[in-house]
Amino acid sequence: MQRTLSQHLPAHVGETVRIAGWVHRRRLLKSVAFLIVRDAAGLAQVVVTDPAVRAELEKLPEETVVEVTATVTARGSHGASKAAPATAPGGVELTDPTVRPLGPPAVPPPFDLYRPALTASLPTQLDNAPTALRHPTRSAALRISAAAVAGFRAALDARDFVEIHTPKVVSSSTESGANVFALDWFGRPAYLAQSPQFYKQLMVGVFERVYEVGPVFRAEPHDTVRHLAQYTSLDVELGFVADHHDVMRVLRDTLAGMLGTVGERAADALATLGVTPPQVPTEIPAVHFSEALTIAGAPADEPDLAPAHERALGEWARREHGSDFLFVTGYPMAKRPFYTHPDPARPAYSNGFDLLFRGLELVTGGQRLHRHDDYLAALAARGEPVEPYAGYLDAFRHGMPPHGGFAIGLERFVARLVGAANVREVTAFPRDLHRLTP
Amino acid sequence: MQRTLSQHLPAHVGETVRIAGWVHRRRLLKSVAFLIVRDAAGLAQVVVTDPAVRAELEKLPEETVVEVTATVTARGSHGASKAAPATAPGGVELTDPTVRPLGPPAVPPPFDLYRPALTASLPTQLDNAPTALRHPTRSAALRISAAAVAGFRAALDARDFVEIHTPKVVSSSTESGANVFALDWFGRPAYLAQSPQFYKQLMVGVFERVYEVGPVFRAEPHDTVRHLAQYTSLDVELGFVADHHDVMRVLRDTLAGMLGTVGERAADALATLGVTPPQVPTEIPAVHFSEALTIAGAPADEPDLAPAHERALGEWARREHGSDFLFVTGYPMAKRPFYTHPDPARPAYSNGFDLLFRGLELVTGGQRLHRHDDYLAALAARGEPVEPYAGYLDAFRHGMPPHGGFAIGLERFVARLVGAANVREVTAFPRDLHRLTP
Repeated sequence: MQRTLSQHLPAHVGETVRIAGWVHRRRLLKSVAFLIVRDAAGLAQVVVTDPAVRAELEKLPEETVVEVTATVTARGSHGASKAAPATAPGGVELTDPTVRPLGPPAVPPPFDLYRPALTASLPTQLDNAPTALRHPTRSAALRISAAAVAGFRAALDARDFVEIHTPKVVSSSTESGANVFALDWFGRPAYLAQSPQFYKQLMVGVFERVYEVGPVFRAEPHDTVRHLAQYTSLDVELGFVADHHDVMRVLRDTLAGMLGTVGERAADALATLGVTPPQVPTEIPAVHFSEALTIAGAPADEPDLAPAHERALGEWARREHGSDFLFVTGYPMAKRPFYTHPDPARPAYSNGFDLLFRGLELVTGGQRLHRHDDYLAALAARGEPVEPYAGYLDAFRHGMPPHGGFAIGLERFVARLVGAANVREVTAFPRDLHRLTP
Repeated sequence: MQRTLSQHLPAHVGETVRIAGWVHRRRLLKSVAFLIVRDAAGLAQVVVTDPAVRAELEKLPEETVVEVTATVTARGSHGASKAAPATAPGGVELTDPTVRPLGPPAVPPPFDLYRPALTASLPTQLDNAPTALRHPTRSAALRISAAAVAGFRAALDARDFVEIHTPKVVSSSTESGANVFALDWFGRPAYLAQSPQFYKQLMVGVFERVYEVGPVFRAEPHDTVRHLAQYTSLDVELGFVADHHDVMRVLRDTLAGMLGTVGERAADALATLGVTPPQVPTEIPAVHFSEALTIAGAPADEPDLAPAHERALGEWARREHGSDFLFVTGYPMAKRPFYTHPDPARPAYSNGFDLLFRGLELVTGGQRLHRHDDYLAALAARGEPVEPYAGYLDAFRHGMPPHGGFAIGLERFVARLVGAANVREVTAFPRDLHRLTP
């Protein structure tokens, strides 16, 4: 008999079906026992009255994998179910079951997966990730993450972007000399890539528009709620832009695509977490950095926005524009990486931007330099050597169009979308200063 | 004026348009000059008769990025074009142009990108990857690769698989003790993940069906045409299988999806390379390992299939079944990893399979062990310690369904599809024993 997923049971009332999943919860009452089975699609309630089946069930702790063959019954139409919890999923339950374990009795995890919230501390959850992730709140965040990435790709595929895969081991550090993981590459020193920045720029020379979804590595010695040493970066780069505003338009459409797909594909997960995705305005409001300082009440010579400034800007965007999103453009060049393109009219400011979401920085991007001579001048101005970048810079001798791009940190995006306080809550197996397992 | 991509020019005959791209080739004849511009969509031919424009063009070497504003003219309707190459793309050319460089004159790469084939040696191409990849044959392979991955995801999304992202740095090696890259993780020894094998199995406990597209790392000391030290692995794992045949059915459908999407999304790239994707039979023929030995004319006690055996099997599958694909099932347990599930009826053979494509191994997969005790016994039988796997194995105490999966090496898949002799021909920036740049 074909297996039926829990969500399809209401369409089979009166039929005998086979379901399979995990023992989510057992309630062994005096005259009747209830078995809640969890599968990928949700929960199913099994009513056990036969003493032999009940005796079998008593030997199957929570998380044991079982197969149940039973009759689908509309809730309330069966005498025994009157004592049942009022939550029979889909308004149906399974009666007259046979229950067969598909493996040995499970060792229950050190927390109850059937309670509405996981009450274990986050470190305990992370230590026991393979089971903690089975809790509906944890798995919901990962489903939202998967939908967000699917929406990212769909939005860019529709705009003629080509997906690329680039090296994660490089001969010199990319973003800065610090915070890199060193490794031995067949006897040569090498580093884990901090970003696909240079490679995506080079691939603009091939495809004009590219994206990559992949791991990046930062040896950040920070133990904070928003830093991971490995995270998933959603990288985009496009050529033949007039300036950073062309990049911002693609980012706006990409974000709308991500949130749209989350709404379509992960509606149940959003409901589990009580989250309503924000609306992305057709045109996201944008303010220049110098204007942003004024709005935030900061001194005009501040070189960067502090978290309090970003919060003030988030409130302003909501109040003045009814928007959860706000672009801040033209960050001072001194605070942006060397490959940043300056504002031709005001060279101390950049053609770079941040996107704030409810007062928190969500995405960084901008226009990049595209002339070889400009790269040499930018490195010289910062007192940085050319040599570590030589192989990368050489490509800019061979004709590169004006281009720009952005990168979205997937875990931070999902954490902010679902309101998680710590990015580790939305990461399956986080890696950080302290954590290398499981 | 909005930029027009080369492919859309035929729809604009008689209009003035703006195109942009790279100087693909210049032909400076006596009375007329031709400029071929390459953009992401293809080529466009510009006819230059104005001496001033020609003088400008003479200063713009191949690969310079330019913008051309001109009139779209049906080929042959313009006097000057009679001397033109017969290959005016789309039957149109651009006349009365103005040409404006979007950057400094390019340094031409050390090979001609406008010739039908890239004649430089593969090492020279790889040393100059940012420009070599601009050649239509090289970029076509990467477009096919992108389409194959899109098809992989679409096939699995349609079957309720969830995409996951797992750690690429682990505390102990996964596939075997050898061939791992070691690194320093905040003062602790760590390794680059050789596969997401353990993580995808653990995530079956969460989502039942998962996939991952990501980099894997093998410190292979082999300098061969099919080994890379980093490659892109397309990993799939699914629970609640009866045995490996359920996995093979998903693999069949996934392959059909990949090739279907390649046909739809990368038709031009296939044409560039002269490739017709193979048909995937509704049911891929399958032979047991012991039967495969007989077909291949190998001794009955051979523990594995040699390349010559695989070729013989490929010919047999084509002859007997008209199929480019053949499953070989039941490989001896001794040749498969410790997590492999044995055939319950013949425990010396496994519930593992290889998929051969035209006589070459393309995919490996199988059913895995799912009981904790079986893992302990398997490791003991091989004389391997439990300790390095302890964190992984512990999850199998907490209820894991019968499951299995497979992994497709993206570069090998594309190389075989397009008939490339070396996987490096279909990899943007390969990493191997010798190569760590660009």
